[in-house]
Amino acid sequence: MSRDLSALVPRLREICSDRGVLTDEAERRTYESDGLDYHAVIPGVVVLPETTDQVVAVIRLCVEHNVPVVPRGSGTGLSAGALPNADGVLLVTSRMRRIREIDVDNQRAVVEPGVLNLDVTRAAAPHGLYYAPDPSSQQVCSVGGNVAENSGGAHCLKYGFTVHHVTGLEIVTPTGELVQLGGKSVESPGLDLIGTFVGSEGTLGVATAITVRLERTPERVRTLLAAFDSLDAGGTAVTSIISAGVLPSAIEMMDALSIEAAEQAVQCNYPPGAEAVLIVELDGPASDVDAQFDQVSTLCREAGAFEIHTAADAQERARIWKGRKSAFAAMGRISPAYIVQDGVVPRTALPEVLGRIAELSATTGIRVANVFHAGDGNLHPLVLFDNADPEAAERAGDVSAAILDLCIEHGGSITGEHGVGVDKVCHMPAMFTPDDLATMDDVRRAVDPHGIANPEKLLPTPRLCGERPSVRTGEHPLVAEGKAELF
Amino acid sequence: MSRDLSALVPRLREICSDRGVLTDEAERRTYESDGLDYHAVIPGVVVLPETTDQVVAVIRLCVEHNVPVVPRGSGTGLSAGALPNADGVLLVTSRMRRIREIDVDNQRAVVEPGVLNLDVTRAAAPHGLYYAPDPSSQQVCSVGGNVAENSGGAHCLKYGFTVHHVTGLEIVTPTGELVQLGGKSVESPGLDLIGTFVGSEGTLGVATAITVRLERTPERVRTLLAAFDSLDAGGTAVTSIISAGVLPSAIEMMDALSIEAAEQAVQCNYPPGAEAVLIVELDGPASDVDAQFDQVSTLCREAGAFEIHTAADAQERARIWKGRKSAFAAMGRISPAYIVQDGVVPRTALPEVLGRIAELSATTGIRVANVFHAGDGNLHPLVLFDNADPEAAERAGDVSAAILDLCIEHGGSITGEHGVGVDKVCHMPAMFTPDDLATMDDVRRAVDPHGIANPEKLLPTPRLCGERPSVRTGEHPLVAEGKAELF
Repeated sequence: MSRDLSALVPRLREICSDRGVLTDEAERRTYESDGLDYHAVIPGVVVLPETTDQVVAVIRLCVEHNVPVVPRGSGTGLSAGALPNADGVLLVTSRMRRIREIDVDNQRAVVEPGVLNLDVTRAAAPHGLYYAPDPSSQQVCSVGGNVAENSGGAHCLKYGFTVHHVTGLEIVTPTGELVQLGGKSVESPGLDLIGTFVGSEGTLGVATAITVRLERTPERVRTLLAAFDSLDAGGTAVTSIISAGVLPSAIEMMDALSIEAAEQAVQCNYPPGAEAVLIVELDGPASDVDAQFDQVSTLCREAGAFEIHTAADAQERARIWKGRKSAFAAMGRISPAYIVQDGVVPRTALPEVLGRIAELSATTGIRVANVFHAGDGNLHPLVLFDNADPEAAERAGDVSAAILDLCIEHGGSITGEHGVGVDKVCHMPAMFTPDDLATMDDVRRAVDPHGIANPEKLLPTPRLCGERPSVRTGEHPLVAEGKAELF
Repeated sequence: MSRDLSALVPRLREICSDRGVLTDEAERRTYESDGLDYHAVIPGVVVLPETTDQVVAVIRLCVEHNVPVVPRGSGTGLSAGALPNADGVLLVTSRMRRIREIDVDNQRAVVEPGVLNLDVTRAAAPHGLYYAPDPSSQQVCSVGGNVAENSGGAHCLKYGFTVHHVTGLEIVTPTGELVQLGGKSVESPGLDLIGTFVGSEGTLGVATAITVRLERTPERVRTLLAAFDSLDAGGTAVTSIISAGVLPSAIEMMDALSIEAAEQAVQCNYPPGAEAVLIVELDGPASDVDAQFDQVSTLCREAGAFEIHTAADAQERARIWKGRKSAFAAMGRISPAYIVQDGVVPRTALPEVLGRIAELSATTGIRVANVFHAGDGNLHPLVLFDNADPEAAERAGDVSAAILDLCIEHGGSITGEHGVGVDKVCHMPAMFTPDDLATMDDVRRAVDPHGIANPEKLLPTPRLCGERPSVRTGEHPLVAEGKAELF
């Protein structure tokens, strides 16, 4: 712990009590990284407030001492957005876990930031309601973290991202003011700062209460898995489903390499010989879902599906999803190390971009497995390499960066749902002009004039990034540190 | 024209040519107000740029001369958000009317700000697509104005507001920078300023291109009108429809006084003797709509509907909507003057708030007609008075203000879709704490450090509002000027 923080700790203990302040190195080390664990820094001090008042007091203290404060939820993020500062405060919201209200009539829940995503649905389910955003980590990730990252999930094609479900926020700004944004109403006058706060990755303060919209549990959910002998054929099926005016709740695609890994890891029994599988899920009123489900099956066959499995019950549905949901972790079965990339392209650019990724893979000898939310063009290429070979690790880093460039070239984005954090901060200038970035920075500095809220994340600085993205110049932390098992 | 602007005009003519700059008083007077015409100021000079470059040059010139600039679309707003400054520039976007692109495959349109709302749908319709936000003024209002006000419409219950349909913005900031926010992708990294820009009422700059999502034209649309012998019975029907999990595209309610006015104005042939009518519209796949339509009819009967009309074709559908859409203007038939109010309450608070409005009306002797988007709790009370009686005008202003207080008390908002502008700026402190407002103001000043973009709108200042809302202290412009025919 740095000298500066020694003065702070007794006052933090007054605010959060002894059990709410961790200074022991072994305890602090638990929090050295989030889900992107090749970025790691032991935090100066960890605080675990239990009330909004404590958050206000902690942040005011940080302002007073000019100490950086990094907010953290469950720590499942994949862009090192919760990477601590060695001389700063890590503010962990996991003890703020009260569901303040389930307002059945107005279909709203008011929850504290540490509440787990799935627990919102668990609390709402007895009333026939659920919370729609469903990141794969929904059993362990927190709603506060979802707000910070504007998390998506397999079903965001139909239901949108976290920002589309938050109607109100109680936040503590980086100057220590308690501010209410929005509420339960659909619309709020003045500047709508909810959209800006959601996805601001902890740079605009800490949400201490979140009001979310609850959806009616759909009358029917149906799931199918279709196998194709090429990615292109799968892509054609996606296009024809969307063009037919069907809006599935999810359309997920996996290529041969992802299928191979998933098969080895969880024996998901996808049709042998498939070069691509498509998982399509429909939900809504029974009559509607049944009619559209038949239509989707027909469109898949017309696009060349050689086998279609339809889930007869919840158990079969879970089996179909198992392969997809385990796909990232399964990569360990076919490669010693891998990078999970996250980029977006307009849906119509998918075939072109997938072709270019295949070319990149062929010319570099670096294998790339593809898992993606096909409906909204959100790619998750998994770049495989042997970490025993430093040269291969460097090439993998280059391929991973080149994929982001492809996304930008095709009018897309450097992140679909994993965020910028530390990991992609130096890619921001490839996507935005200096004026675009300056406008974001103006807003950030207006809310955080002292620059203490999650500094050096989200927006690039010359000190961090120089003139070119660091990945491109070989300074990528992965390459530099040669770290291996990423997930 | 003030002396300061004389120096500006030749340079404005260089930028926008002679036809793009209006200095003649008669021409300027055309722009003295928007739809809320009891606020009127003749603008110092009017410019009508045709390109983004011209907008950039005009705003940089305004910065250089420290001259306020007020953006205006079609001028149909109802909160005086486009009220000009006598010594400022009114920047009218109506000549920026190019539809830059209809991207059918990605379901996006890129339009300039002066494009009329309905023209987006007209351009998209041949491709089976349409633009969902539909303010009543959609034949004449502009997409740029919709962005400024975050406009809603009868169908925003199901489809959301303008902010839910904008995925990209090209804006010129109040410092004259051209900035791109978002794009065609569903998600954009960094601070998401789209949500803040949409609804910022011209205080954060001018949008010069807007990328909007297009929806598939629904396979079926069905509309019914149900008549009830009390507002409460109508309210019960709304609750039971929503509780049944049906999400109509629109649920509109009108009370006896509104029906009387509409009947006199457009002979809409609503069932005689109705104390309330409910218009319910469903859209979507045919099978789904047909099943739910029967369910809605049954629920209305169970709630006590004594007569139900169902539209057999587009013509009958139009006839049902005619009474609702003409309701505001129809008030002239039953009252010499009236104020259109716009407030929101959580849906479940509707019966209570309607009861309190009826009490207010009884105790003050001021009649109030109620027309509202019942599904999302957006009230449009029409406060009727005789403008020949100054004392009645004052009481009407008080009733109108008291209705907003009721909305706030019940956890709602002072505006649902008409915006704050000049008209409600002094109500903001009743809804937000000083810290809430200061946070908004920090963001505004960060983007507009010179304070030239639509000054004195949206956020209150002590100079404007003193310590209490001006309406409450009798300084309401309506009362002060005694103006009469408002709409």
